[in-house]
Amino acid sequence: LKKSDVVHFILGERLHYPASSSPVRAFAATNIALCKYWGKRDSELNLPMTSSLSISLGDKGAITELSIHNKEDKVIVNGKEIPHDSTFYKRLIAFLDLFRSSRTIYFNIVIQVNIPIAAGLASSACGFASLVLALNQLFHWELSTKDLSILARLGSGSACRSIKSGFVEWHKGIETDGMDSYAAALPEIWPELYVGLLIFNKQEKNISSREAMQRTVNTSALYPAWLEKANQDLIAMKKAIQEKDFLQLGQIAESNALTMHALMLSAWPPISYFLPETLIAMQKIWELRKQGIPVYFTQDAGPHLKLLALQKNKTEVQSHFPSVEWVRVF
Amino acid sequence: LKKSDVVHFILGERLHYPASSSPVRAFAATNIALCKYWGKRDSELNLPMTSSLSISLGDKGAITELSIHNKEDKVIVNGKEIPHDSTFYKRLIAFLDLFRSSRTIYFNIVIQVNIPIAAGLASSACGFASLVLALNQLFHWELSTKDLSILARLGSGSACRSIKSGFVEWHKGIETDGMDSYAAALPEIWPELYVGLLIFNKQEKNISSREAMQRTVNTSALYPAWLEKANQDLIAMKKAIQEKDFLQLGQIAESNALTMHALMLSAWPPISYFLPETLIAMQKIWELRKQGIPVYFTQDAGPHLKLLALQKNKTEVQSHFPSVEWVRVF
Repeated sequence: LKKSDVVHFILGERLHYPASSSPVRAFAATNIALCKYWGKRDSELNLPMTSSLSISLGDKGAITELSIHNKEDKVIVNGKEIPHDSTFYKRLIAFLDLFRSSRTIYFNIVIQVNIPIAAGLASSACGFASLVLALNQLFHWELSTKDLSILARLGSGSACRSIKSGFVEWHKGIETDGMDSYAAALPEIWPELYVGLLIFNKQEKNISSREAMQRTVNTSALYPAWLEKANQDLIAMKKAIQEKDFLQLGQIAESNALTMHALMLSAWPPISYFLPETLIAMQKIWELRKQGIPVYFTQDAGPHLKLLALQKNKTEVQSHFPSVEWVRVF
Repeated sequence: LKKSDVVHFILGERLHYPASSSPVRAFAATNIALCKYWGKRDSELNLPMTSSLSISLGDKGAITELSIHNKEDKVIVNGKEIPHDSTFYKRLIAFLDLFRSSRTIYFNIVIQVNIPIAAGLASSACGFASLVLALNQLFHWELSTKDLSILARLGSGSACRSIKSGFVEWHKGIETDGMDSYAAALPEIWPELYVGLLIFNKQEKNISSREAMQRTVNTSALYPAWLEKANQDLIAMKKAIQEKDFLQLGQIAESNALTMHALMLSAWPPISYFLPETLIAMQKIWELRKQGIPVYFTQDAGPHLKLLALQKNKTEVQSHFPSVEWVRVF
């Protein structure tokens, strides 16, 4: 099955709806997985090997402004036009091609992202999610959250989780067409929970998460054990969220993230997103916990850490990590 | 079963042999596992979960000088007497207790080690192996290599591999008394193969390999997959050695070591022996390989790396790692 088959299935007649003549804007928050998505069962449709669970990052994310252009696709990210021969441009255009009712419709896409791009902060997740939300407005599709989530997934797997905010679970699904692989928000809110961004540098990563993920699935001898752990972690994480058990949430998230990075170290050629600064911060967090300060971290396909802490411990944690940027989630 | 049961079984009558009146000396080289030992099936007898394969490090190791003392056990390591209330003293004395025919025999033990101690360079392996070799001389036991290997294992698991030099395989065995868990030298020699020590600092590690190993087995969700990989790596490593296939040897050794460290990251609480310097060196090695320079590494329960290279590439590798200390193995 191809992406275009899924798009036709979801949109049907709507594919021929006319575009709004005025620009539309949509925001999607980036999301940080507490239970990671690492490995695809279908790389065309971005269907995952496991379910995953994320938290959205408040006002950190992407705003996409979308309108019809009269003669070409034009993409501007953070004020800079993207060259037509770049990988990102081609990927975006290929995605937009799925939604063109005719070959003579062009888009003007202006994206503002307020997090570092291609650095393990899920810029592609919020980017594709906001684009899908904008398309939904531009063409007046009025799609359900589930359908929006599936369309966003076709752009970038974890984008499906950025359609909603708060705690979001991406159900892996089992169908080959992926119509049961979508994200949905959990009902719980947890206003005391904060995410602290610890950004070490803003260099782009030297291996994409897409490639790293594929190499892990193909070469890590530990991967089969991950499938089992991912499943158990998800169940335990949902329980921790229901019970507002921060120590459990922190432990599961940190262990899940470290295990994902462990898989990468065991791949061939080996993959490491650790910078020296990452390691030093990790050791410091472990030291703080020994001193009784409840702080945990998660790490994605980039060197940065995302701290997890409760509101009451923010100040103390900040005294040890002065550069941390706290994000209010709820 | 206890250690003393195994000692009685191996030594029998020999336990009552009188000690030589003159001091004896024995050297054992330290060994670096190319296929790691990580996890015990019996922590009293140091029986491993998997077989492992090592290479000895030429003249790097321990010399133990042993004689009878008239009134107490005295241990001197690198010229410094070990305090009687230290963990190391107690561990050594408990080991020597296994070999005392009477309560009134005392030992004078002088150990010279020419590698950093408790830093992941297998100082305990060569220490216990040289001690067992010295005991064998002091009491004229004339034990077989197999029996010496088993006795050394009772002191420290990997010490059983330091009884011989060159490539050594430790057969994990399946018996509960561990009489089939011993090390034996492989027939192959490989004079072109060099090990390069890359020592980052000489601080002692903050978690012993014994504790790290146990925590990994108890808490890492990835551990079951390791058992399978360890077995496959060992088979492939022996083939690479037979065929003198350096690229295979290097890849298997590096992947095996990284996977061991991956297991530790996935343990709880997480364990990391990486220093920032370790990471930087790893990245550099991966970069050198991309440039076509055949160099690999292995890493044990410490921050240091041991490079693997052929004689013809030593100079080039050294130009990138000026501090490397090459060890001729054969």
